[in-house]
Amino acid sequence: MTAHDPDTVYHALERIFHEPFRLAIVTQLLDAPTGMAFTDLRDGCGLTDGNLSRHLKALEDAGIIRSEKTFVRNRPRTTVFLTPEGRDRFLSYLDALESALKEAAAKLTPTQQQSNANPAAFPRAGFATT
Amino acid sequence: MTAHDPDTVYHALERIFHEPFRLAIVTQLLDAPTGMAFTDLRDGCGLTDGNLSRHLKALEDAGIIRSEKTFVRNRPRTTVFLTPEGRDRFLSYLDALESALKEAAAKLTPTQQQSNANPAAFPRAGFATT
Repeated sequence: MTAHDPDTVYHALERIFHEPFRLAIVTQLLDAPTGMAFTDLRDGCGLTDGNLSRHLKALEDAGIIRSEKTFVRNRPRTTVFLTPEGRDRFLSYLDALESALKEAAAKLTPTQQQSNANPAAFPRAGFATT
Repeated sequence: MTAHDPDTVYHALERIFHEPFRLAIVTQLLDAPTGMAFTDLRDGCGLTDGNLSRHLKALEDAGIIRSEKTFVRNRPRTTVFLTPEGRDRFLSYLDALESALKEAAAKLTPTQQQSNANPAAFPRAGFATT
């Protein structure tokens, strides 16, 4: 079984990331090595406080993110960080997602895509380095 | 709000397709204009009869696929087809998925991807024609 067997590709879509808003949240955190304020993350993803809290709980339980609560001028502030393990797992997930898109592109004939798209040449960015 | 606002991108990931095995099923059907036998679809996706039936039910209820039951040498045969509407919606979904990957690629610096990957040049195949 190769990495491009459909069986392997779709099994590799780790479900913790495969929820549109968790995908949005973790994407936001990718380039935030010093963390992101809860409120910025909420506004960036277009979520309510409650929805963001629920998704962060699931991601924290899975070891994907960690959060720190501090006080700034007597007001609580929550900062959210992607863990190194979470980052590695997310890059593998993105790689699987890219493979799934490649599978779909390979099923389409050129006339069914836009003129600049050639399924055979569907390019891979290569997210995971392993 | 543009098509690349995170808010729009992740909302556009239509949930009927955003289940790894439904993604696998509909991908298989993309290049099967004369339909696919239930058994071929099952084997192609690595699913059990029961799992495939459940996903097909959900896809049929949503208008994505239709199925035909016939008899071949006195044995029942089920053939599954992607509907024209299902195809259009799936191509829009793939387009949203590609945008989500592009968002993630844009967050990564070149050294965090493989050497051939340049986030700024992350290419779009352009699945949906609208």
